[in-house]
Amino acid sequence: MKRIAAIALLLLPLAAAAQISNDDVHKYDHRNNSQVRNVISIPGFDGYQTLKCDFHIHTAFSDGSVWPDIRVQEAWQEGLDAIAMTDHIEYRPHKNIVVADHNESYNIAKKAADRLGFILIKGTEITRSKPLGHLNAIFITDANKLDVEDPLKAIDIAREQGGYIIWNHPGWPDDKSTFYPIHDELVKAGKIDAYEAYNYMESYPLTFDWHADYGIAPMANTDIHGTVAGDYAYGDRWLRPMTLVFAREKSLEGIREALDARRTLAFFQGTLVGSEEYLFKLVKASLKVRRLSSGNMEVTNISDIAYEMVHDGRLYVFPAGKTALVPDFSGELVVRNCYTGHNKCLHFTFEK
Amino acid sequence: MKRIAAIALLLLPLAAAAQISNDDVHKYDHRNNSQVRNVISIPGFDGYQTLKCDFHIHTAFSDGSVWPDIRVQEAWQEGLDAIAMTDHIEYRPHKNIVVADHNESYNIAKKAADRLGFILIKGTEITRSKPLGHLNAIFITDANKLDVEDPLKAIDIAREQGGYIIWNHPGWPDDKSTFYPIHDELVKAGKIDAYEAYNYMESYPLTFDWHADYGIAPMANTDIHGTVAGDYAYGDRWLRPMTLVFAREKSLEGIREALDARRTLAFFQGTLVGSEEYLFKLVKASLKVRRLSSGNMEVTNISDIAYEMVHDGRLYVFPAGKTALVPDFSGELVVRNCYTGHNKCLHFTFEK
Amino acid sequence: MKRIAAIALLLLPLAAAAQISNDDVHKYDHRNNSQVRNVISIPGFDGYQTLKCDFHIHTAFSDGSVWPDIRVQEAWQEGLDAIAMTDHIEYRPHKNIVVADHNESYNIAKKAADRLGFILIKGTEITRSKPLGHLNAIFITDANKLDVEDPLKAIDIAREQGGYIIWNHPGWPDDKSTFYPIHDELVKAGKIDAYEAYNYMESYPLTFDWHADYGIAPMANTDIHGTVAGDYAYGDRWLRPMTLVFAREKSLEGIREALDARRTLAFFQGTLVGSEEYLFKLVKASLKVRRLSSGNMEVTNISDIAYEMVHDGRLYVFPAGKTALVPDFSGELVVRNCYTGHNKCLHFTFEK
Amino acid sequence: MKRIAAIALLLLPLAAAAQISNDDVHKYDHRNNSQVRNVISIPGFDGYQTLKCDFHIHTAFSDGSVWPDIRVQEAWQEGLDAIAMTDHIEYRPHKNIVVADHNESYNIAKKAADRLGFILIKGTEITRSKPLGHLNAIFITDANKLDVEDPLKAIDIAREQGGYIIWNHPGWPDDKSTFYPIHDELVKAGKIDAYEAYNYMESYPLTFDWHADYGIAPMANTDIHGTVAGDYAYGDRWLRPMTLVFAREKSLEGIREALDARRTLAFFQGTLVGSEEYLFKLVKASLKVRRLSSGNMEVTNISDIAYEMVHDGRLYVFPAGKTALVPDFSGELVVRNCYTGHNKCLHFTFEK
Repeated sequence: MKRIAAIALLLLPLAAAAQISNDDVHKYDHRNNSQVRNVISIPGFDGYQTLKCDFHIHTAFSDGSVWPDIRVQEAWQEGLDAIAMTDHIEYRPHKNIVVADHNESYNIAKKAADRLGFILIKGTEITRSKPLGHLNAIFITDANKLDVEDPLKAIDIAREQGGYIIWNHPGWPDDKSTFYPIHDELVKAGKIDAYEAYNYMESYPLTFDWHADYGIAPMANTDIHGTVAGDYAYGDRWLRPMTLVFAREKSLEGIREALDARRTLAFFQGTLVGSEEYLFKLVKASLKVRRLSSGNMEVTNISDIAYEMVHDGRLYVFPAGKTALVPDFSGELVVRNCYTGHNKCLHFTFEK
Repeated sequence: MKRIAAIALLLLPLAAAAQISNDDVHKYDHRNNSQVRNVISIPGFDGYQTLKCDFHIHTAFSDGSVWPDIRVQEAWQEGLDAIAMTDHIEYRPHKNIVVADHNESYNIAKKAADRLGFILIKGTEITRSKPLGHLNAIFITDANKLDVEDPLKAIDIAREQGGYIIWNHPGWPDDKSTFYPIHDELVKAGKIDAYEAYNYMESYPLTFDWHADYGIAPMANTDIHGTVAGDYAYGDRWLRPMTLVFAREKSLEGIREALDARRTLAFFQGTLVGSEEYLFKLVKASLKVRRLSSGNMEVTNISDIAYEMVHDGRLYVFPAGKTALVPDFSGELVVRNCYTGHNKCLHFTFEK
Repeated sequence: MKRIAAIALLLLPLAAAAQISNDDVHKYDHRNNSQVRNVISIPGFDGYQTLKCDFHIHTAFSDGSVWPDIRVQEAWQEGLDAIAMTDHIEYRPHKNIVVADHNESYNIAKKAADRLGFILIKGTEITRSKPLGHLNAIFITDANKLDVEDPLKAIDIAREQGGYIIWNHPGWPDDKSTFYPIHDELVKAGKIDAYEAYNYMESYPLTFDWHADYGIAPMANTDIHGTVAGDYAYGDRWLRPMTLVFAREKSLEGIREALDARRTLAFFQGTLVGSEEYLFKLVKASLKVRRLSSGNMEVTNISDIAYEMVHDGRLYVFPAGKTALVPDFSGELVVRNCYTGHNKCLHFTFEK
Repeated sequence: MKRIAAIALLLLPLAAAAQISNDDVHKYDHRNNSQVRNVISIPGFDGYQTLKCDFHIHTAFSDGSVWPDIRVQEAWQEGLDAIAMTDHIEYRPHKNIVVADHNESYNIAKKAADRLGFILIKGTEITRSKPLGHLNAIFITDANKLDVEDPLKAIDIAREQGGYIIWNHPGWPDDKSTFYPIHDELVKAGKIDAYEAYNYMESYPLTFDWHADYGIAPMANTDIHGTVAGDYAYGDRWLRPMTLVFAREKSLEGIREALDARRTLAFFQGTLVGSEEYLFKLVKASLKVRRLSSGNMEVTNISDIAYEMVHDGRLYVFPAGKTALVPDFSGELVVRNCYTGHNKCLHFTFEK
């Protein structure tokens, strides 16, 4: 190519190569990030795939600040596999302006979800004071029917609809994670299926025991009112809170089956909480070992969750998506970002 | 500290040190990104400070997808200095659900703006077909009064209120950036003050001449309907589109004075468009030179906008916030990401 | 935990949690990045795995600036699978200080390589003026024996040792990529096996045809003298230049077999060069498709190489490690960052 | 521009726009990162500027793994202001290959330093067993003369040359930070000027008191043998360890004057150690306050060092280069990443 043309090409800004590129319009659609979805890599095990879910979401239809379609767009972009629309029944501060029933936010979001082939779960939040507190009813069919005075009745109606009940943020708002008699009753009656070990910006350490003690599924949800990117994008590498669901298939039914089987882990702020079995299997599936002749081993973390382990008084980090060179450990390591219970960390051993 | 305590400390996850940290609740408020605001560094010159603004914004009150307070939160977090609320008058697809007048989105956002000490400009979008097209009227006092059948009358009403008129996305939707007779009329009558050289995901190269030809202020606005982080966060380093306003003070009055004086540049996709004077002065204020004895110079770009220059057939990049080692150039460089007009790049010389 | 203890914990800096943590010493070994290796994800095809290699490396033993062990450490950290040590025979500016024969840099590096289980290839660079230019001889057994006056003899000696010959940077230093008669001779005699389509900071577009025209393997190597991180870490996301080798196994033999079969692609600056067959198969293996009912498809790029394709006048980008939402294309796309020859881009079709 | 040309331009890879761009060669020199220097922003106070220094560096001339010029290139790229070349006198494992005297590494590096206008300090490391341990002698004129049997004599010779003595890594290698009688003697005789509170990958908490107790300057140095980018680039945001020197001017003399006045802070792993006066003034210069009417304040951290403060049981983070929205605190905050002594954190108050 001639030097003149070369200089002409040089004058084409590196930054402004557009797709339709003429005098009238330069389009930058190839830079439209709304068409890009993250991939969150978390392996499965035992034939299950790991679905990344958020079961606690608000919109302008109760006390949130976005239109319902944004929630689907947001979650799709982040790399999640499913969200539940759970606007408050009782608390609707915009109701003078936003005139709609309790199913509308789901209906609007559903159109966006169908366009993107994204799984959307219908739900709502029964919003009362402690001791009962807040509970999400998901997999319901008609949220309007839950708008009754007696919250225990609302729970029953939800159950009749095939609903699944989550006890939200047990430690909010009084910073006390109390398991009240009413919850004991509900759990025993099979009317509480899951609980939030983490919600928005706080975790409830006492509750890390509850999955084992009460047989309810541990969850981490955002309870997002603003935008997830706005509230959680702290620092350069972040993974928003999510409930990991180990399902047989990626579908509504697959998620429900796994939730019923309590096959979940709560993931938040780099920490995982749940049963020893699932934590162990997840860690095992995530770390691939290659032993070197030098007495060291290369451990490749094929997942997006980093692991921190203590062995013989020393700390070892297995960064997400990288390979760490570590000694060929003998004996157990304590995985200090994985909790099987309150103050109880997972013990892990590398396969020989 | 004893070894036991040391190991106990090791078992404190690196990731989960929270602020109130007890059994009932671990708070992570120190990681709440909604409390963090970016700093966008762009120097001023001649005693002006550079305000980063977006004059074209939508909410759920017309055809956008967020509650108005989110727009203030978003812009504050991004590091902007001001936004204009410009919901459509004529196009309000949610109006069966969102029941409000044309001032409501501004009123709601204003509360959030006042809490954050953020500058919010009242505005609206007169939304018609070409040839007239869409125009934003900002600095108005009552958007309801612009809801009239004749758009030219709406413009006059806006002017009576002290409004400032922006001609939006001239090349949309037909991909032709035509300066129609009606625009010529309006410009001559002083009824068009500014135009968008860039809107959302496209620029209009022909219009790069208009600031010089017609004396109207060049702008780059998002016309955002979804979320800015969702649509623009493409790649690791991104600066959303913005109109740079060189103002005497950071206030509503300061912005208006600068807009009246046409003291703006359009910034989008790493590219700047506007008058030679402002481009030159901005580049000059951004690049600090230190000459070395070896015949090279260190050029430190103290701004967040990178510059790409061609000299003698070679390309040199001055990355944002870094120092580049380059030859001690004699003669002019062509700044290929700065346009003074259509196909006309800024010529720059380093001071001796 | 009591509030006092809570505050005490708060006073433990987030940043300084160390592994052995006592008054005498706080260790930060868990942050020692030299123990961390990147994972570069590039899928294979047809039963081959994709090895990431650099066949042109210098050390302080000729005109480079690092000790040989650093090259192994560097490449291991970057995620490469093999490097060739190719110090100059003829050009050794440090020889007054660094006293050693031509095999020493390999010998020193070999110890580091064995400790890390990293593949190191013995080699050297025959360094002459054009027309012959520079050639690397790799897979040799004794570099000392190549220190002869006649470079053609050096080539023959290399071949006798089982060596593999690479024609380096054909366009350097005179910016002309001339295929001289001597190269024609050598190629016909089977004495040139590969060539560099890219070296250090430049590519040679005319040579993009040579793999097809002459049956020699296309390569991209750094020819690094300084440090790779120092010279190439430009911008936040970078992949240093590398030669992709599609091998049956990850070993010296596997690499040699693939090089003999010309089963390589040159990768540099986001661009790939090589045969249509391998480019097509690599792109196909990298992009996983999920069709949506809406007439769009989700294309997940499971590799670390982004692809840019033009279809019907529009540009589409498939970012590394992400999913892009694009139309369900019918017909061919031009992959504009993949060259099958000079000015010839790969044509790609998505499977139905 | 015609559509054909538009499509032709589309076929120009986004990624491969080079500076000289023709068939023979495409140059990517504009992407050569070795020409780019980071800017590390740390404000000064009281008329002093903050120089970023590393006073403990090794090369292949003792037991390091790089040629001396790389150290200058490295430090220049990282954004440092000065380094000291401190190869071991006694420990030179490469001496069979690298044949040179004790001044050669400095001499070679000096050429690179002069080309870049970078400050290089001549030095060496007196390398003995404990109790004496290792000491750097910097600002010497002839390292050869320190090659004597008696290390105390070497210290005296260094002092005669105008040298400045640093006690290196007091807690290495036995993990005990013992202040031996010999050190007490040397300090009292004015023969130890500074000490390392941090070296390579460890800090010595007991020594955080020494600047106050003994009047010696606190330092944090890398003692780098490999490459800084290789060993420290852990995670996305990292600042390598450095000694901050508050100097009147950026020159050898300026650094020496500040070192004599003990005007330093040790910075490592996000932590600062040193006198209360300098810590307070640095924090104060770094955090700019803007009070809002809502009872909150915006605190902009204009530096590249983040600060973490505890107030009334709550943790607040002031991220580097960003603005944090926090309450308008009354009373003191404990700056938990700033140590005035062992287990003693800086107390800070925002100005009214």
